[in-house]
This record gives sequence, C-alpha cells and structure tokens, in this order.
Amino acid sequence: MSNKNQGQQQGKPKKTAIRFTREADFPQWYQEVIKEADMAENSGVRGCMVIKPWGFGIWENLQRRLDKRIRETGHENCYFPLFIPLELIEKEAAHVEGFAKEMAVVTHHRLVAKDGKLEPAGELESPLVVRPTSETMIGESFAKWIRSYRDLPVMINQWANVVRWEMRPRLFLRTSEFLWQEGHTAHATEQEARDETATMLEEYRALAEDWLAIPVIPGEKSESERFPGAVETHTIEAMMQDGKALQAGTSHYLGQNFAHAADIKFQDKDGGESYCHTTSWGVSTRMIGAMIMTHGDDDGLRVPPTIAPHQVVILPIARDEDAAARVLPAADELAEKLKNYVAFGDVVRVHVDKRDMNTGEKRWSWIKKGAPIIVELGPRDLDEGSVMVTKRTRIHDKTSQKVEAFVPTITEQLVLIQYALFDEATAYRDARIKTDIADFDAFKTYFENEDVHTAGFVRAYWCETAESEESLKDLGVTIRCLPYDQPEDPGVCVITGAPATKQAIFAKAY
Amino acid sequence: MSNKNQGQQQGKPKKTAIRFTREADFPQWYQEVIKEADMAENSGVRGCMVIKPWGFGIWENLQRRLDKRIRETGHENCYFPLFIPLELIEKEAAHVEGFAKEMAVVTHHRLVAKDGKLEPAGELESPLVVRPTSETMIGESFAKWIRSYRDLPVMINQWANVVRWEMRPRLFLRTSEFLWQEGHTAHATEQEARDETATMLEEYRALAEDWLAIPVIPGEKSESERFPGAVETHTIEAMMQDGKALQAGTSHYLGQNFAHAADIKFQDKDGGESYCHTTSWGVSTRMIGAMIMTHGDDDGLRVPPTIAPHQVVILPIARDEDAAARVLPAADELAEKLKNYVAFGDVVRVHVDKRDMNTGEKRWSWIKKGAPIIVELGPRDLDEGSVMVTKRTRIHDKTSQKVEAFVPTITEQLVLIQYALFDEATAYRDARIKTDIADFDAFKTYFENEDVHTAGFVRAYWCETAESEESLKDLGVTIRCLPYDQPEDPGVCVITGAPATKQAIFAKAY
Repeated sequence: MSNKNQGQQQGKPKKTAIRFTREADFPQWYQEVIKEADMAENSGVRGCMVIKPWGFGIWENLQRRLDKRIRETGHENCYFPLFIPLELIEKEAAHVEGFAKEMAVVTHHRLVAKDGKLEPAGELESPLVVRPTSETMIGESFAKWIRSYRDLPVMINQWANVVRWEMRPRLFLRTSEFLWQEGHTAHATEQEARDETATMLEEYRALAEDWLAIPVIPGEKSESERFPGAVETHTIEAMMQDGKALQAGTSHYLGQNFAHAADIKFQDKDGGESYCHTTSWGVSTRMIGAMIMTHGDDDGLRVPPTIAPHQVVILPIARDEDAAARVLPAADELAEKLKNYVAFGDVVRVHVDKRDMNTGEKRWSWIKKGAPIIVELGPRDLDEGSVMVTKRTRIHDKTSQKVEAFVPTITEQLVLIQYALFDEATAYRDARIKTDIADFDAFKTYFENEDVHTAGFVRAYWCETAESEESLKDLGVTIRCLPYDQPEDPGVCVITGAPATKQAIFAKAY
Repeated sequence: MSNKNQGQQQGKPKKTAIRFTREADFPQWYQEVIKEADMAENSGVRGCMVIKPWGFGIWENLQRRLDKRIRETGHENCYFPLFIPLELIEKEAAHVEGFAKEMAVVTHHRLVAKDGKLEPAGELESPLVVRPTSETMIGESFAKWIRSYRDLPVMINQWANVVRWEMRPRLFLRTSEFLWQEGHTAHATEQEARDETATMLEEYRALAEDWLAIPVIPGEKSESERFPGAVETHTIEAMMQDGKALQAGTSHYLGQNFAHAADIKFQDKDGGESYCHTTSWGVSTRMIGAMIMTHGDDDGLRVPPTIAPHQVVILPIARDEDAAARVLPAADELAEKLKNYVAFGDVVRVHVDKRDMNTGEKRWSWIKKGAPIIVELGPRDLDEGSVMVTKRTRIHDKTSQKVEAFVPTITEQLVLIQYALFDEATAYRDARIKTDIADFDAFKTYFENEDVHTAGFVRAYWCETAESEESLKDLGVTIRCLPYDQPEDPGVCVITGAPATKQAIFAKAY
C-alpha cells in the first residue's frame, strides 16, 4: 500500500496493531483483522458464523443501499420458504449437470427424550433440503403466478439466509450458512431478460465501486465458470491485497432453461404459448470479506465511510470527575452538532465512546475497527475550542482542528476518505494487472513464481476453448471473466498461441 | 363493525367482495382475504408460506418502525446461526421442563444421485436443529463475551427466520417457518433486567397501537402460560373480530435461569463473581395475522396507512389512446406532487397502477388489498381539476375532490384513516369485554354459548392458583394476562369464589 510506511522512523521495524502483517501471512492477517475489529466469530456449528454488531452494521449499510437500488430498478421484495422438497431438487438436477450436492438435509421434525438424551423422531415422508439458492422454489411460484403476457415482467428479490455445506469454511468468504439477496425475474422476451441481467450487474458494479470503494472488473464468465443452467453469467471481479481475485457478485441470464424445467409459460398477445426468459442475480456477505481484504491494513480494518456503522467516533478524555463533568456533555454536544450534517444521503453517524477504559486502548480499538474518523476531546481541547482528529487513512497524522472548522467540513472529510480508499485500491490493483505476458511459458513462470510482491491478474488474449482453459488447472489459475472493455484488434491466445479476438482476466481466486 | 352496513340498501342482502363474510365463516373469510389481497400463499412445503410483495411490504414497514425503536432503545443488531447443535438443546432441556419438541432436524449434509433419485448422504456426527428460537446459541455467545461488569449490559437483537413444526398451519398465524425479531439482553442487576423487560413490552404496545392501530391489553402471563424457563412473561393481547384473543408480542424476564444454564457470569466491581440477569423478547409475522383479523372487513383487507406499501393508489382512466396521452402523464404528475408530503415520518407512498385492466376490476383489486386511499383520474376529472377519491374506510362514499384541496391535505387524510381504524377496533373490543360475570356458572354459560355476535373476553377476579386455571381447559379458555391496570379493591375469584386481589383477562385464543 502506498502509505504503508507512513509515520515510521527510518530503519526502525514498524509496529502494527495486527499480530500478522499482510506480507507475512495474509490468511492469518485476515482472521486477525476480523477478530480485532470484533466483526464476527465462528460458532459452535462448523462453518456457521456469529456476525457481531460491527460486522452486521456494515452488512446493514450495504443492504440498505442495495435494497434501495433494487426497488428503484422496479423490483419488489418477497419471502420464499427455507426448505425445498427433495423432488423439486431432483427435477432441477435432471436438467442441470453439475448441480451442487453439499446441502443440509432435514429428515425429521421432532426431538424426543430417550435415556436423558434427545433423539430425532417423526421421520419426514420425504426429506427437505435447506435452500442453497431459491431458483427451484421461485420457479414453482412463477409457474403458478404467470398466465398471460399481462403478468410480465415479474421482478422480485429476497433477502435470505442460504446453506451450502463447507468443508473448509472461512469467515465471510466461505461459510456453510451465509446471508444474501437473490433477485429472480421472468420476462416475455430474450432482450428484456438480457437487459435486466446487464442492469443488475451494473448495480453490483456501482455497489462495489461507489459504495464499498472496491474497484471491480465487470465482464462475462467463461462457459466452465457459469452458474449451472445459465446461458450467460456476468460477474464483477475484485483484486484482494494478496493479488487473488474475488468474485463479488453475479448476474445470470438463464434463457428459457429454468422456464422449461419449472414450466414457466405465458399466453402471448397473439394467443400463442411461450416460455419465459428468466434471470437471477445475487450478492452475499462474502462482499464483506472483499471489503476487508481490499481496504484493511496492518493496523486492522478500514471501513469506507458509506458503510461504517459509526463514521465519527468521539472519545471524551477525563482523568477525574471534574474533567468528566465538563468533557462528557461537550462530547454529546459535539455529536449532536455533527448529526446536523448529511453524508452519502444519510445523517452523519456519530458515536460517543464513554467506556471506562484507557484512552490509548480505546483509540486503538477504533483504529482496529476501522472507524473513518476518531475524535479525541479532553479538557485542554475544550479550553482551546479544538479537537484532536485521527483519520483512519492516516493514523500517524493526528491533527488538532478548531471545532468551528471541523464540524462544517465533516461531509467533505468523509467523502475525501471514501475517495482515498477507492484511489488507493485502484492504484494497487492497476499496478498488479500484467498485460505484457507474451506466451504460456511466461504465463506459467509468472503464476508459479509470483509472491506477495508480484501476485496479481494477467490480462491477455484467449481463444475461448474449453481445452485451453482446462490446461490452467494445474497452475491453480482460472479465467475470472472476459471484461466488457475489449481491444478492437484481435491477437493471439496466451495459452495456445491460436488467433483470438477477446482478452480475459486470469488469476488465482478465492 | 360499526360501518358494516354502510351504503347498503335497506332490506337488500349485502354484496361483498370476499366470498365468505366474517359472520358466516371467520376462518374461511381470513383465508380468502389473504388470497384476494394477494399477500401470501402456501408453498409446496407443508406449513411454509410464500410471502408475496403486498404481504412482505407490510412486514417491511412494520420492521422498519420496530427496528428503529430497537436501536433507539440502545440495542444493536447481530446475526446468529440457523443451526443449533443437539447438545446445546439437551443442556437447555435438562433445565427447562416442557421445552418444545417439534423441530426440524438436519441429519445429513449431502445429496447423492442413486438410480435417478437423490438421497441424503454424509450423515452428521451429531444432528443439528433448525433454530426454534436462539436463547441457547446466544447464551453460549454471551458466556464467551461477558467477562466483567464493564462488558454489561449486552443488548442485542436479530431479525431471523425460525422453524417450529406445525401440524395445523395457518398463514401468518401458525407456520412452520416464520420471520421474527428476537431481542436478547444480559444485565448486572435484576432491576435493570426487569426494566428492560418492561421497556420492550411498552415498545410492543406502541408498535401495535400507534403503528398497526391494533388496541392491546398489556399484562403479565400466569405461570402456566409463561415462556419455559422464564421468571416472568409479559404480553400484549389483542382481540380479533371473532372475539378470540391473539398474543401479539411477548417480553420475558428470565432471571438467572438461562445464565445458570449457559454459564453467563461476570466479575463484579468488588471482584466477586455473579450470574447475569437476562431477558428476551420477540414479535413475529403473526402480527400480520393480527392486523388482518383486526381491520379486515367483508370487502377484504384494510391496511393502516402507517404500514401500507402504497398509501395512495392512482388509477388513470383512459378508454383510448388520446385519453391515455393526457391522463397517464397527469397521473404521474399527481404522484410526484403527493410525494412532496410526509406522513408518519416518511414520504407519502404513492403508486400509479397502469395495468391493462378494466377500471372497476382494478379499483376492487385495491379495495381488497386495503390500500388506504384510491384515486381515480379520467379525462373529465382532468378537465375539472379534480380527482375521485375512495377511502378504504368508507368505500361506498366515493367523492370528487379538487386537486388543490386533495393534495395539500394528504397527510391529514391518511392520519384520519389511521385514527378511524384504531377507534373502530377499540370500540369493537371494548364492547366485547364482559366485566359483569359474577360466578363460574355464568362464566361457563358465556363461553359455552358465545356466538359470533357475543364472543369476546371476560375480565374478572382470579385467585392465581394453578388448579383454578386448570379447570378452564374443558372450556377451551385460557388466562390471557393479568392486565397492568388493576382495581384498588380486592374481589372474589370468578372460578373458585375464593378471595382474590387481581383481575385477569379470560378468552379463547389463537
């Protein structure tokens, strides 16, 4: 990161708040940031997490923004059952090669006590599956709801928990239960459905870049990386600080495949019968993992102001009761003043931390949590009409600001932090997209020898054949997407040397 | 209902939009209202419902208000796992007599194809239970999080789906899966925990009365009606239009019972070790059932403006393209004007219904959905600068209003509808609380002979013994609560004739 050594004295080893640096051990750093920021933790159930207030508050702010956009683009929220009958999955599985099979299966509906233990009883006639996604359930409803072209389009969304059994879970990135939204739409024409797919991918791009300050590459997935049953899968791909890719959201054009499977038909204007064209699209709590690995530094999390549960944290400093009697009300008053301002469409979110705790420890707890602006307010500051301000993007530049200068510029200061995070992440990413890999030998050399200082994406021509993609497997590399912005001229495939018209993004991925 | 016969011609049988009247068949009327209002439907999984946009929009508006109040009263949202290890339930069950046993049990984590069918595989070492409520999971976390008095109070909430297997499900009222919020708090002292219990019950009362226009009786549950393991359960009880009671929200003071079970201890200021006092409280999608059965009439649902997904629905009337060219933009313009006004703290929610459908049919669809205000706008209205206004509370009094009179008074008109619904429901309820039942014979006569015209609550003295409560069983009557407002003088128990100091509410219940 560009400001990695800021405030550090020449020659001295840097002391950081997180036990593992990103450079030394990225996966351990990730776990530690989550722990030190008090965002989430593993539960007693393998692969299932407890999302704590700081982590959940971030999710809620992401959700609020996305939900608003989902409505504004013409969708309505619904809720579909948690359980899916086995027969429905079977129907689906018959049509869809490679359907995921790691699912939680409910076989009983009762617990009975036996010898001081509880045992499952009341076996179900047919098992139920805990939804891994809701295409099947929603398809069944669509088939019931849609009769005529007048009923179309149907455009719905649900916020829900889904379960996909994970053998090697990691908080936010891969958990057996996770939270997401899944949008499902049915249209009369292919064009409408394709437009919808594109609209929602653009919403995801805007969510990632404009809201989470995560630069992403939007593009189409290769055939082997498609959602099973989709005609096209579109994706936004982000680069983490270890150079790996993370798929941050997908939007699928499902053609008439799911409509055929679920019998979603309508009578068209001429009285004929047609199958609908459907789409689905989703973003999950995984996005929080992307946010951590994009913005976090060796002192912990850095939360974009747009989604920080508290954008400004005020720390009243009082060594005795006399000081407390002056400082505590002043801190509350400052908070109220700041709440007169709006940032990113909402009232500025301010928190006064009155915990009975040493100020240094308290300040570091908020640095590790990544609060965008930390304000210290002691008796001397009060006398001087000033506050001590730490910005999370420059923690070693604590500055004293006059209250009358600080308060009215709060929106601007938050916006500048937001931009700084986005610019920093974009610079990091752009510097790590290799565009000069000439052939497969150089390609292999790059991915085999990459280390923490060079790991990243390769952008190169690809001949779009399944065989060439297959040959990436041993390298642990995948095609992340074919970006929308493509050069006008053709080139040669970096894997096979064959003529190619399109470039792809190649990377190791989460 | 007071306006039941409004607009009806003397002597003629009333024609209503719902196939069954409340009087003729209340349960069937309930199902039909949900269907005709397009709120929800049964899914292919027994007992699990699909909540459609109109029903879910109502839930979201309820949720938005309650979530705001939960935050404002000092709580933070979290998320806990869907699955609970069997061992945790066993630990709990050992302490709690009568723990509910109808639960969905997950025994496998994989599906494998066998002879064209899918079968459960990957048996779990120990089964998992789909949460019926999260006391056990959250208790385990509290035990981990809480070390010292400095960590207290811990005050959290989650919005989640829970599952309790239902043999006789009914939409919104009793479903195997339902949505709710569950608050859980831990405190250093009994007083704090008792105060919290009372605070949240008061929030529920305000939610029911001020937001859903449902009058409720707040009070304490008798011992036999308590949440298993609670020291005290507090409730709000509403009366449905068939005279039955519905428990609309509960708040539990759990004492140290759950703290002992889950080992939730803290080091107090003096260095000693104490168990926490805990509380829990919840409101669910059942509240929507209460809303339907409180406000619905024989023409369908009536939604309080506070929670109506659309508060005003505009129907542009255009018989040909020329008319459409004038009327459609005018309808949009009217909608925009109305959106300049605020009602109940939010911008007025307006919808322009441009569906290709006969106006009469369209108008009735919104009557059945219970939209508070329906506005018709045709070419002639345009010429006259007026609109035809139907209020859902007085559907037979369609009135023409000048646009310049209608628009600026929209807030007031919505507020008056809100009050009208509350007043009507309160009058209905108050007229059906019998306070003059002298003894158990009269009591039995009342409940045995009650019919749709007389069914309701009995309010009478009760001696607070389990035996007397037991003798209500054959009548199908339960003690709903001991209301907070109690007479100063003692009396005699309506069941036993023994001296009694408190009055109770007796009723048949959902």
